[in-house]
Amino acid sequence: MSSRPIGLPTLDNFALRALPDGPLDADQLRVRNLWLSVDPYMRGRMNDAKSYAASFQIDQPMTGGAIGEVLESTMDGFVPGDLILHMGGWRDGGIIGLDMMPNKLPAELLAGGMSPQTFLHNMGLTGGTAWIGLLRVAAAKPGDTVFVSAAAGAVGSAVVQIAKAREMTVIGSAGGAQKCAWVSNLGADAVIDYKAGPVLPQLAAALEKLGKPGIDVYFDNVGGEHLDAAFAVANDFARFAICGMIDVYNDGKPQEMKYIIRSIPARIRMEGFIYTDQFIECMEEFYADMGGLIASGAVTIRETVHDGIEAAPEAFLGLFSGANIGKMLVRL
Amino acid sequence: MSSRPIGLPTLDNFALRALPDGPLDADQLRVRNLWLSVDPYMRGRMNDAKSYAASFQIDQPMTGGAIGEVLESTMDGFVPGDLILHMGGWRDGGIIGLDMMPNKLPAELLAGGMSPQTFLHNMGLTGGTAWIGLLRVAAAKPGDTVFVSAAAGAVGSAVVQIAKAREMTVIGSAGGAQKCAWVSNLGADAVIDYKAGPVLPQLAAALEKLGKPGIDVYFDNVGGEHLDAAFAVANDFARFAICGMIDVYNDGKPQEMKYIIRSIPARIRMEGFIYTDQFIECMEEFYADMGGLIASGAVTIRETVHDGIEAAPEAFLGLFSGANIGKMLVRL
Repeated sequence: MSSRPIGLPTLDNFALRALPDGPLDADQLRVRNLWLSVDPYMRGRMNDAKSYAASFQIDQPMTGGAIGEVLESTMDGFVPGDLILHMGGWRDGGIIGLDMMPNKLPAELLAGGMSPQTFLHNMGLTGGTAWIGLLRVAAAKPGDTVFVSAAAGAVGSAVVQIAKAREMTVIGSAGGAQKCAWVSNLGADAVIDYKAGPVLPQLAAALEKLGKPGIDVYFDNVGGEHLDAAFAVANDFARFAICGMIDVYNDGKPQEMKYIIRSIPARIRMEGFIYTDQFIECMEEFYADMGGLIASGAVTIRETVHDGIEAAPEAFLGLFSGANIGKMLVRL
Repeated sequence: MSSRPIGLPTLDNFALRALPDGPLDADQLRVRNLWLSVDPYMRGRMNDAKSYAASFQIDQPMTGGAIGEVLESTMDGFVPGDLILHMGGWRDGGIIGLDMMPNKLPAELLAGGMSPQTFLHNMGLTGGTAWIGLLRVAAAKPGDTVFVSAAAGAVGSAVVQIAKAREMTVIGSAGGAQKCAWVSNLGADAVIDYKAGPVLPQLAAALEKLGKPGIDVYFDNVGGEHLDAAFAVANDFARFAICGMIDVYNDGKPQEMKYIIRSIPARIRMEGFIYTDQFIECMEEFYADMGGLIASGAVTIRETVHDGIEAAPEAFLGLFSGANIGKMLVRL
């Protein structure tokens, strides 16, 4: 990041810079990166404001999830050739210390055919966010009716598939015919195209068609109009897991909430969450459960891939213009 | 109720009518009412819309809490002279059946000096709402910083006092110097006059003066600007108990929420609740705990009393213009 954005970031906020190189100190890895993750949460970290993680620093790399191959190691337990997940972010490689939390990818899963970049999506941040938000924060259970916004995104598409695998009824929202068709193919019982008209009437019509009185769970990735519509049609004791509000990350405008008052008569519980708070304690259960869902084909993904380190800013900006289906990745 | 209000109710929505009288059937009580309760939640029941309780019917009494004396009984366990709490609502008396849920007031508490109308406020709906919302829904604990709106109201004033008795730091909001002085007398550590200026700057200033980084708990009685301000200053893992949104009961306008997006980085849990959902299971604990707080003087109340059945509509309308300090009652 070369400068802090005001509102929507632009390519001018980014620059490619050389990083220091040299011999390794103790407990370091020299790494060649293979895959970089670009994620909506990074937008918040570009601000110089208190958020849930430290701000990015100007003229320093955008940190975040990346998959790399170890070239040289002074760190116990790592040898050249190991594939690792680390938090070093947008760089073609370089020196990775313990602060970047390097972790070897599980060899048995790779041997079983799982691709390394899966640990940047369904077996990592986005899949973990979907699994924790749906099953733990919103406590969704078989038979529930679940509404998911940004259902064609990396998190949303995992939510749709996990919910279907758990015998829930799923209504997804996405923008445009192509994304909606894909969400439908993932197994959603109904799909709303938010670009085709207001959300609430479409959501109400979908519920009526499905013969459901309302929603038990809302998995929010966007905020704004979708969140308000969810309040409007929530069943008693509905649970909202608030994962993101991408609608308002950039403009900072007030959200007009007409139906939030229904939180009282319907006793709605709305809860914001962050994956990392809960990931460690449920990691083992998550890997076992999600690994099984992926192996069985119940959870799949589409990857939208940009090539080369130079393409990272463009890939990132695409998240805010709806350019991705599934998980947006940069391949080096 | 003689007609349904649109927006703010007026005296024209009410009329005094004679009710059928005659000999008692089985399982009935003839009652002379002594005290009637008027409560904000009744506004919702005046609409012909799905709410958490059945709508009031035109040309039928506004039902709700009342204290009466039994004159005649064909119901097991009740004899003339008994003081009862029942849900027969706005009437000077008449025939009360099992559907009005008559309950004898605990003789030992009355003998100990508790006034009968206490069961319409601190030992009843409003005190129970405060106790359940603060201690159970918001899970407030000693050391927490608690923000309470409508802190001079029947529910709010109980929240302030319960929180202080439990060693929490309390910031109350009320409208006008007289109410603010009263909230301060109840023990609040800081008081905001929402009529004197915008809520958020006053709330931030109060926190700074108290040396607190933010709030751990928000007890919401009003919605709107207060709720948004609470989102703005919430600490990580803050809990919001949403009890009422009196700001928007009448106008139905959208609420502009600028800070609801903080529910993600701060992992805020917001939960709407209704007293009756949880009251039965915790009634024994509530009576013991609240009875002790009242007996020790830790929880007191001011009653705003109107006299005569004809005054009930005016007393009710006063709830929406801020005319009451403490609990609004009608004495017959």
